[in-house]
Amino acid sequence: MTTFVHDFADGNKDQKDLLGGKGANLAEMTNLGLPVPPGFTIDTEACKAYLAEGAEPAELAGQVTERLAALEKTMGRTLGDAEDPLLVSVRSGAKFSMPGMMETVLNVGLNDRSVHGLAAASKDERFAWDSYRRLIQMFGSTVLDIDHLVFARALDDAKRARGTEADLDLDEEDLKRLVGTFQGLVTEHAGRDFPQDPREQLDLAVRAVFDSWNTERAVLYRRQERIPEDLGTAVNVQAMVFGNRGMDSGSGVAFTRDPASGAQGEYGDYLQNAQGEDVVAGIRNTVSLADMQEVAPGPHAELLRIMATLEHHYRDMCDIEFTVENDKLWMLQTRVGKRTPEAAFRIAVHMADEGLIDLDEALRRVTGAQLAQLMFPRFDEDAPRDLIAKGMNASPGAAVGKVVFDSHTAVEWAERGEDVILVRQETNPDDLHGMMVARGVLTSRGGKTSHAAVVARGMGRTCVCGAEALDVDAERKRVKVRRGPTLGEGDVISIDGSTGEVFAGEVPVADSLVVRYFEGEEADDDLVHSVRRLMEHADSRRRLHVRTNADKAGDASRARRFGAEGIGLCRTEHMFLGERRELVEHLIVAEDDAGQEAALAALLPLQRQDFEEILEAMDGLPVTIRLIDPPLHEFLPDYTELSVQVALEDERGNEDTHHHKLLDAVKRLHEQNPMLGLRGVRLGIAIPGLFTMQARAILEAAAARIAAGGDARPEIMIPLVATVRELDIVRREIAAVAEQVQQETGVDIAHKVGTMIELPRAAVTAAEIAGIAQFFSFGTNDLTQMTWGFSRDDVEASFFSTYLEHGVFPVSPFESLDTDGVGALVRMAVERGREARADLHLGICGEHGGDPHSIHFFDEVGLDYVSCSPFRVPVARLEAGRSALGGGGSD
Amino acid sequence: MTTFVHDFADGNKDQKDLLGGKGANLAEMTNLGLPVPPGFTIDTEACKAYLAEGAEPAELAGQVTERLAALEKTMGRTLGDAEDPLLVSVRSGAKFSMPGMMETVLNVGLNDRSVHGLAAASKDERFAWDSYRRLIQMFGSTVLDIDHLVFARALDDAKRARGTEADLDLDEEDLKRLVGTFQGLVTEHAGRDFPQDPREQLDLAVRAVFDSWNTERAVLYRRQERIPEDLGTAVNVQAMVFGNRGMDSGSGVAFTRDPASGAQGEYGDYLQNAQGEDVVAGIRNTVSLADMQEVAPGPHAELLRIMATLEHHYRDMCDIEFTVENDKLWMLQTRVGKRTPEAAFRIAVHMADEGLIDLDEALRRVTGAQLAQLMFPRFDEDAPRDLIAKGMNASPGAAVGKVVFDSHTAVEWAERGEDVILVRQETNPDDLHGMMVARGVLTSRGGKTSHAAVVARGMGRTCVCGAEALDVDAERKRVKVRRGPTLGEGDVISIDGSTGEVFAGEVPVADSLVVRYFEGEEADDDLVHSVRRLMEHADSRRRLHVRTNADKAGDASRARRFGAEGIGLCRTEHMFLGERRELVEHLIVAEDDAGQEAALAALLPLQRQDFEEILEAMDGLPVTIRLIDPPLHEFLPDYTELSVQVALEDERGNEDTHHHKLLDAVKRLHEQNPMLGLRGVRLGIAIPGLFTMQARAILEAAAARIAAGGDARPEIMIPLVATVRELDIVRREIAAVAEQVQQETGVDIAHKVGTMIELPRAAVTAAEIAGIAQFFSFGTNDLTQMTWGFSRDDVEASFFSTYLEHGVFPVSPFESLDTDGVGALVRMAVERGREARADLHLGICGEHGGDPHSIHFFDEVGLDYVSCSPFRVPVARLEAGRSALGGGGSD
Repeated sequence: MTTFVHDFADGNKDQKDLLGGKGANLAEMTNLGLPVPPGFTIDTEACKAYLAEGAEPAELAGQVTERLAALEKTMGRTLGDAEDPLLVSVRSGAKFSMPGMMETVLNVGLNDRSVHGLAAASKDERFAWDSYRRLIQMFGSTVLDIDHLVFARALDDAKRARGTEADLDLDEEDLKRLVGTFQGLVTEHAGRDFPQDPREQLDLAVRAVFDSWNTERAVLYRRQERIPEDLGTAVNVQAMVFGNRGMDSGSGVAFTRDPASGAQGEYGDYLQNAQGEDVVAGIRNTVSLADMQEVAPGPHAELLRIMATLEHHYRDMCDIEFTVENDKLWMLQTRVGKRTPEAAFRIAVHMADEGLIDLDEALRRVTGAQLAQLMFPRFDEDAPRDLIAKGMNASPGAAVGKVVFDSHTAVEWAERGEDVILVRQETNPDDLHGMMVARGVLTSRGGKTSHAAVVARGMGRTCVCGAEALDVDAERKRVKVRRGPTLGEGDVISIDGSTGEVFAGEVPVADSLVVRYFEGEEADDDLVHSVRRLMEHADSRRRLHVRTNADKAGDASRARRFGAEGIGLCRTEHMFLGERRELVEHLIVAEDDAGQEAALAALLPLQRQDFEEILEAMDGLPVTIRLIDPPLHEFLPDYTELSVQVALEDERGNEDTHHHKLLDAVKRLHEQNPMLGLRGVRLGIAIPGLFTMQARAILEAAAARIAAGGDARPEIMIPLVATVRELDIVRREIAAVAEQVQQETGVDIAHKVGTMIELPRAAVTAAEIAGIAQFFSFGTNDLTQMTWGFSRDDVEASFFSTYLEHGVFPVSPFESLDTDGVGALVRMAVERGREARADLHLGICGEHGGDPHSIHFFDEVGLDYVSCSPFRVPVARLEAGRSALGGGGSD
Repeated sequence: MTTFVHDFADGNKDQKDLLGGKGANLAEMTNLGLPVPPGFTIDTEACKAYLAEGAEPAELAGQVTERLAALEKTMGRTLGDAEDPLLVSVRSGAKFSMPGMMETVLNVGLNDRSVHGLAAASKDERFAWDSYRRLIQMFGSTVLDIDHLVFARALDDAKRARGTEADLDLDEEDLKRLVGTFQGLVTEHAGRDFPQDPREQLDLAVRAVFDSWNTERAVLYRRQERIPEDLGTAVNVQAMVFGNRGMDSGSGVAFTRDPASGAQGEYGDYLQNAQGEDVVAGIRNTVSLADMQEVAPGPHAELLRIMATLEHHYRDMCDIEFTVENDKLWMLQTRVGKRTPEAAFRIAVHMADEGLIDLDEALRRVTGAQLAQLMFPRFDEDAPRDLIAKGMNASPGAAVGKVVFDSHTAVEWAERGEDVILVRQETNPDDLHGMMVARGVLTSRGGKTSHAAVVARGMGRTCVCGAEALDVDAERKRVKVRRGPTLGEGDVISIDGSTGEVFAGEVPVADSLVVRYFEGEEADDDLVHSVRRLMEHADSRRRLHVRTNADKAGDASRARRFGAEGIGLCRTEHMFLGERRELVEHLIVAEDDAGQEAALAALLPLQRQDFEEILEAMDGLPVTIRLIDPPLHEFLPDYTELSVQVALEDERGNEDTHHHKLLDAVKRLHEQNPMLGLRGVRLGIAIPGLFTMQARAILEAAAARIAAGGDARPEIMIPLVATVRELDIVRREIAAVAEQVQQETGVDIAHKVGTMIELPRAAVTAAEIAGIAQFFSFGTNDLTQMTWGFSRDDVEASFFSTYLEHGVFPVSPFESLDTDGVGALVRMAVERGREARADLHLGICGEHGGDPHSIHFFDEVGLDYVSCSPFRVPVARLEAGRSALGGGGSD
């Protein structure tokens, strides 16, 4: 016979699958001999059987009877007894904590008769009726599905009748009447009476907990938190203890170390004559754990002993809930405590130093997400602030500066030493210079994967995007805040990229010590010390290499200081902007081959200079350079805007020939779906000389570096390849150029030629492509777009929020790799590619290269490296180390 | 030891892999005892070894020596002998014919000495020197890679010196001098002398044939014709016979039946005193085979006997080349002859009737492409015509009508009985009505997968697109033809969708009897009889069902007459056009839920009416209805055009509030990449009520049909599903509607709910999706777009022509399924889907459903049906039947 019901004494902390988190820890504490109110756990198997069959398993009722009898014997009282009733709590407890999602019923066992017994035994009539009132209220809403407002309104009526607003002002007579009212409401709304049979109360409460597993909000929560659907919940039935039985009673919460700072030493709050809910609700002022010594010295001393025991036993910081009933300490719950990022790093290293855990375990206990938070500057928490708007937390950090509305002003002001915040409706590639020099970027439109957000994250630049309350008028250089001030150029604002908040005026910023450490500055600081210890350990463990995405020598150098082992993605299109834009325009609007060739010839030395600087910054390390990828019209004015401009010019008699010619080119290049148009390798094949010019610039730069004694290791990467034939055409052209450059310079240039895998077709036909590619780099941004059939630019605004609400995905697949879909294609390409070429070098250079969850996936499928923005390099190193420890998850 | 060289007597016709097509047939004829000049074949294995190693296999030279000795013994002459030389031809012969791609060298064995022997033996000095001249010329250009113009110029000089333009006017002295000149040119351009050693001539010629396998044009040809790269070519070395040895000599070609009409009886041409080349070149007039009886009665009689033998032996119509040398008949080649579509059908059925082949074999010998050609009307071949432009042959057929420039006029004129041709720069969904009523569509822009081309093919409407010589000015209602006339509204033109030709004025059209037969009209016509016989046989054989894509009851009825077994794709977006557009505009620009609901409520009865008509037309058969798919802005004006219009209106002081409001909506809905935006199931989830309105209309229509005694079988199809969760959300909503409608109407409506598989992610996660989908329908258009990452609308113009030139693909993947890439995803989805749900019903409704090559693939992977445009239904039935016979290929 399956055992579904387990006495606390029969379990342990490793049985979370079966007993849930709460139940397993109650069992552990019971077996440690700690004072836990006795009880038993109905396990998750019972729940799963109930959910599958729609009815409790046949054995369950008998087993509950048996366990209940044992509990009654232990307690010397009978459930719902008319003289001196045993009362129990019925609490859900799944494997993973789902705060607020699941049901709890307290005081089960009270009825019209036992309430008198409780009054007599406690010698507190009011306490007894208040407990009964609470049972009916909780039972009615939770078990019988009555809208909780029904009871709240009746309670308000009672208080109004008494002329008060506080529950505590209701006396026993009021509460007796309220019990009658509540019972009437149950009958009216549930179509049945409140059950007087204590066992029926218990059974229905257990079933309600089971049912709560499948409420819509619980399903959604699990989907968002990536908790499996099929775990089920356990139910804990436990003898009630009361902290509200007078001044020698009370309730409290405690941590074995400070969860905010990580400092050693106990930490907590205690409230006399109160139940657990009251401590959390903050109705009255709590006292600190130290002060509890004065008001409850006996329980306090015992609590400290128990906390020491628990921390040693759990080998981690514990979070504890306890109750004191008539000077007797009871442990109601313990679990490993949540903590701030700073505390996580410090506690992990402290415990390793104390010998409680080893360094592997310490590394497991911190995350890349925590490290990222430590790297961003933050606003001083105690400073005053004036919140004027809220947008999306697109790229973390705290930035203060003067409002500017265009790139040009941003650069000009920044050059004279001003801090600026670039404020735009939305950004485009023309704003890049402005974004680079700004402290932060604020937009009124676009989501977390808008241009502003993606580029800002890439630069480690603070960004708040989609702050809809802002009406940005760039032309008149002002921004109107809905129900707020109107700001002009030069007005100071502060933006918090971690919360999405926008403040008027300056909020003081606290610098990140951790970034300063990564930049090379040592500090005698415990947090820095902890971070260094764990980074070093992660580096010693990891298999996966970490490169950076960088287009400029400056970014490359910084990334190198941050630990990057090369460049995984050097985009070349940014090198076609700014003052070079004119040359690109010539290239595009050229009327003949000669014009095109001239434009290419003029671009060659500029590109070569770019590459020389980058190769120098990454001397001795591989530098993967992607040939030009985006559609050409991105270098031209917007089609619609230009059409309107030209039409108005014509209308006004100011016909402009250049604008007409430009419009012709824009029209010719206009595409319905530029993302699916003439880009990447297609450009290279359609415009003869474009890719070979770039290849020549790269190889000449490498030759110059090598001739000068450097160690240049360029890798030329072809974007958007769908079929091996495309790669073959370009590869042959590059080989010819390489041959020429080597002959011209007399330098032997070791280089590789490989391809992005960013189209589903490339993944499917990876074996053929690997036949001629020396490396693959997964472009998971585009691969996500094509696999899902949606474009990053378009979908966030139109339906991503709806999709997140409906739980279609728990997080945008552009933020964290969709391992089931896109990941399946990555895995397929890795397997097929390696089968065809055993020494195929594999990396990933999409945004996912800096995402912890995705990094673990990439490690698991066997990539050689991930590449991410410079600021994400330490995060990736840490997560690669954690991933090497095994055991799955990134959190 | 491997045998690389085979005497003709040692092979047979089934050894095409080893001996190539020509060699295998020469062997077969030799073994039939027919008069074939003796010789031997160097096989494809030798070629493959040579290509792999870069050198002939070691055994080859010895084997050639041995075979050559045997040949010399048979002929009683020695290669290049000074007295009476044996001369040989060296001809390539691959498995598949590659006309003009590969090399031939005749007269091998002539040198400065043997030319005198030939002169003596033939008693014809001029003939000998002309033969030698030809050898040096052919050898120089083919084997020694000298530009053929070098020889052509020298020949011209010789003729000019003689004051003539005809080769025949050169006498023996001229030719002797020319031989000297040619030898000098060889030395000059090849850096070596013309080889005097006959064996060296032979070996070098063989090697040149091997090398010709890998010339760029041959590689490209194979890629375009889908001929595998690794077959290699064989080389045939054969004793020369000469048809130019006087009036008792000659050359000819013959067919055992008429290759144009398929009529029984021999057919061919003969030319006295001529070589094969002269017959083909048409320098002099040939005589018919019947007339050959008079000029060469002996060889003629023998030829007829041999042709009868060959046709019985090959059990197919044979194409023959022969030479008569001094009254003796020699067979130089035979193969199964090419034929017109009409001949193919007639010959196949005739031969079945004659008992030469069975009906399966007859079915194998016709193709869907041939049937399609028989279905299109054609211009009367003998009629005069005035060609003014040429575009792409986008949708076959011949159409004559008056030029109209807009949909409105097209409908108006068509309603009063005029034939019209819709002429547009390019078409868009607004032109649908015009396209439907027009006889043909002509555009100046866009390729074979442009909107005009795709829609026209779908309607079976003749279409020429991308006729760049046309400058269409729709506003002024005129079209200027470059170097041609300017046409106005009402001018008559004729367009040929099979050739892309555009003619001024009316060219008479011949109707298709075959279509009239499919429409139900019987004709006492041999072609119709043949088509019926093979269609019936195909139907009896095929496993694959054939449905149609149809949005209107009329199309559905026609498709049913053409043999469709249901509708595989009924698009609903076309039902939102025309006069209903206003309602859709309301839906989109509605400012609140009430406005949206009102618009939906107004659309419901209209949609219901559409569905009732279609369900009636397809009574008793399944009708798969796709819920609305395209982005909403397709129902609104163009963003750029409207922006310009509003800007100009404002500028002129004619501000239009409605236009402003519309522009706001267009701007709000504007997407960078609409193909990757808010469409399909995303619309259904983002706009509550849209899909449920459609589901209700479908189910109410079905209920009405069933209540009226009909047999409605609706299948509701959800487009653009990427993840099972999307489908689940919509499926639940539809289930609720179905429950309601069934309760409201009291009718039990058997229906299915399934999904398109058109995103790579859906294919990859097909197992999960199959868990809740009752059927899959592959949307191979979108699947192709996403898998390759290019959009049909954009790519043809910008780089498809370059890609076809470079052989990136042999044919647009939108025309014929890319089986390696897109097909691999289809196969994956089929396997995973069926594993998850054994009774999953599988179909395909992309354009590929009507493409022969693709149909065979879909049959092979196990789909249940293909769905195609009504006109393609017979083609698909035929190909499904052929596919069931097995043996691969669609041609």
